[in-house]
Amino acid sequence: MSTAWTSRYAMRTKGLKSSAIRELLKITQRPEIISFAGGLPAPDVFPVERFREACKKVLDTNANLGLQYGASEGYEPLREMVARHIARYGIKAKADNVLITSGSQQALDLIGKLLINPGDRVLVEAPTYLGALQAFNVYGADYVSVPSDDDGLRSDLLEAPLRSGPKFMYVLPNFQNPGGTTLSEGRRHELVLLADRYGIPIIEDDPYGQLRYEGEHLTPLVVLDRANLKRDNGYSLGNVIYLSTFSKTLAPGLRLGWIVAPADVITKFVQLKQGADLHTSTFAQLVAYEVAKDGFLDEHVKVIRKVYGERRDVMLEALQQYFPPEVKWTRPLGGLFLWVTLPEGADCKKLFEAALRENVAFVPGDSFYAPHASHEGHRHFRLNFSYGQPEQIREGIRRLSLAVKEQLEQLHAVSVR
Amino acid sequence: MSTAWTSRYAMRTKGLKSSAIRELLKITQRPEIISFAGGLPAPDVFPVERFREACKKVLDTNANLGLQYGASEGYEPLREMVARHIARYGIKAKADNVLITSGSQQALDLIGKLLINPGDRVLVEAPTYLGALQAFNVYGADYVSVPSDDDGLRSDLLEAPLRSGPKFMYVLPNFQNPGGTTLSEGRRHELVLLADRYGIPIIEDDPYGQLRYEGEHLTPLVVLDRANLKRDNGYSLGNVIYLSTFSKTLAPGLRLGWIVAPADVITKFVQLKQGADLHTSTFAQLVAYEVAKDGFLDEHVKVIRKVYGERRDVMLEALQQYFPPEVKWTRPLGGLFLWVTLPEGADCKKLFEAALRENVAFVPGDSFYAPHASHEGHRHFRLNFSYGQPEQIREGIRRLSLAVKEQLEQLHAVSVR
Repeated sequence: MSTAWTSRYAMRTKGLKSSAIRELLKITQRPEIISFAGGLPAPDVFPVERFREACKKVLDTNANLGLQYGASEGYEPLREMVARHIARYGIKAKADNVLITSGSQQALDLIGKLLINPGDRVLVEAPTYLGALQAFNVYGADYVSVPSDDDGLRSDLLEAPLRSGPKFMYVLPNFQNPGGTTLSEGRRHELVLLADRYGIPIIEDDPYGQLRYEGEHLTPLVVLDRANLKRDNGYSLGNVIYLSTFSKTLAPGLRLGWIVAPADVITKFVQLKQGADLHTSTFAQLVAYEVAKDGFLDEHVKVIRKVYGERRDVMLEALQQYFPPEVKWTRPLGGLFLWVTLPEGADCKKLFEAALRENVAFVPGDSFYAPHASHEGHRHFRLNFSYGQPEQIREGIRRLSLAVKEQLEQLHAVSVR
Repeated sequence: MSTAWTSRYAMRTKGLKSSAIRELLKITQRPEIISFAGGLPAPDVFPVERFREACKKVLDTNANLGLQYGASEGYEPLREMVARHIARYGIKAKADNVLITSGSQQALDLIGKLLINPGDRVLVEAPTYLGALQAFNVYGADYVSVPSDDDGLRSDLLEAPLRSGPKFMYVLPNFQNPGGTTLSEGRRHELVLLADRYGIPIIEDDPYGQLRYEGEHLTPLVVLDRANLKRDNGYSLGNVIYLSTFSKTLAPGLRLGWIVAPADVITKFVQLKQGADLHTSTFAQLVAYEVAKDGFLDEHVKVIRKVYGERRDVMLEALQQYFPPEVKWTRPLGGLFLWVTLPEGADCKKLFEAALRENVAFVPGDSFYAPHASHEGHRHFRLNFSYGQPEQIREGIRRLSLAVKEQLEQLHAVSVR
């Protein structure tokens, strides 16, 4: 069937497959299942009333702009707002340094398009965000993976991978997806120093940075960047491209993310974005601007922090209560996820099937590793704690513990035999 | 500056430049300029009140869905609506055959990604839509161009280009951008027959099909498609992929387009779309669905037809009144554009500068030709008639005629000398 097309697919579809998460989400949408699989914000914190007012405002006062074609760079007041917003973290940027993207995912796609030729190596954490792997795979990326621990990427293991000549390094320093870990301040300095020494630029992906539930915000890599520090005007960003999004703080349904980069790099991204989708929905941009402005976003983020922080605590308590002592998990200071590690020999894909029989779901770890390293994921899995209500989280972890215990008993039986 | 990045740009940015239209639009935004350059819908036909109701409805009854992540395929009721909508033109499709895209431009990008390897040839009309060239260029497309006349693509000149082995053919049969021409019924049959003979699949881009101001709707290529006709069930589409959009009938600021294709091809597009932007804004999709449903879209399209049809008539009358007889132009049956041809030797880039001095703007023709053929554009330009008010259109054509006459006088002086 459709041979006229299938015989014509370009090499970019080689090995293309639907993301595991996506296929899992289909299964886990059954109402009886408690799912820790998605990375969904909690709908109970969507600021619906504020959206209602914002839509009315845009349509009452600015419909001709909001419904019309717009600039590929994005809505100027929104770009300025992003520049002001990130200034609090020490990131000095002007609107010219900001491109509004159709979600962070588009930022990753544009990065792949701009930077990756087939066979180019990308340095990633192991594990790393699977959406980045998906975006880069299409452009024929190869990978070099660097292990991480509770303090994030192991900067002490970074030198050899950097010397292997990656095109760039892709890092999520805050409350990493899937690890839930945060790169320590000391390692941030080491990483930036090494990147500068070998001339390897950095993509810093920070979708969750604002969702910190304890401790102090750590300095972004883009601020520590040596190339940036050497500059006079402070506005020409250097060797770090910084990504973030409104998906976790306002609503993912808007599909609004952003890239912060040197102005000449933004110019290239803008040209690629023109060909990709002309521009991001003007209506979504104007509505987001109206929702976020006048300090609302900051107030709203406080609400989200409180809700998600409580849910994280509930999940950590439930894990402590129900899970056997051989199982380990990370203790995230923020974000949406934590990462569970079973004893050697465990198989999280089998566990996933057993968990579904208990009506609970998660994402097995192998999807979060570059293809060459996917075997490393077999005894890990990712849990989301932002979406479920506290009582669902507790019940879900209880159910999951049954499947885990069953697998550990089998594992034990095998090793005894 | 930023050498860490610029030295790393992938080959896809070779020769990448901002679209001429885009740069022109910046100049032509000065308030004193009457611009025929953009392809903008008239804001006076945006159904703002209906949008207001739709936003309220979505936020009152469906906020959890509308603000949340959604399926990469698109919002199911919207996909079903598209399938019902195109059935009236004889296109038999189910929701499975429809992918919602972030505007038609994303459809073109996904097509490039799915089908084009560097050096692959794409068969295009001369002139053709520049956004398609932009999207395909990034993937390293080469082109073979087929001339067109008042009846659209010259199907009598198609055989040799088809035998040269293009990966696919890209055609805009209705009220072509930029030509304003419509492919005749006879040529549609010839085109589909030849494509079938040489096994070359077709991308049929139809953003304007509904905006017909006179005459009867002609059969889409996707319906005439021989591979389709051979099938039993009528649902498995064949060798034509059909594209359209809500940009010209509802509002471009939503960024909502769609691809209609065989289900297995849609599956591939969905996988690529996941990596590109996860999915199109759920909020925009739900709002568009609420706006369009219950027959509103059909009623609204009648309003647009009336307004744009009058503006087309005004522009045609003004051209007749003010332009010298050596100048020719197409007489579109629908759409947003018409195409002007000056006598041999004219230079529309110089004319553009002269026109700006008269405070009127258009898009010079060379942008609408594949790189190998861009010299063919020198004596053509595109005029948009949907955006301006009738009195502006008349005044703009009067101003433009001054610049045209000036150039023709110079041309004449040169040829006399």
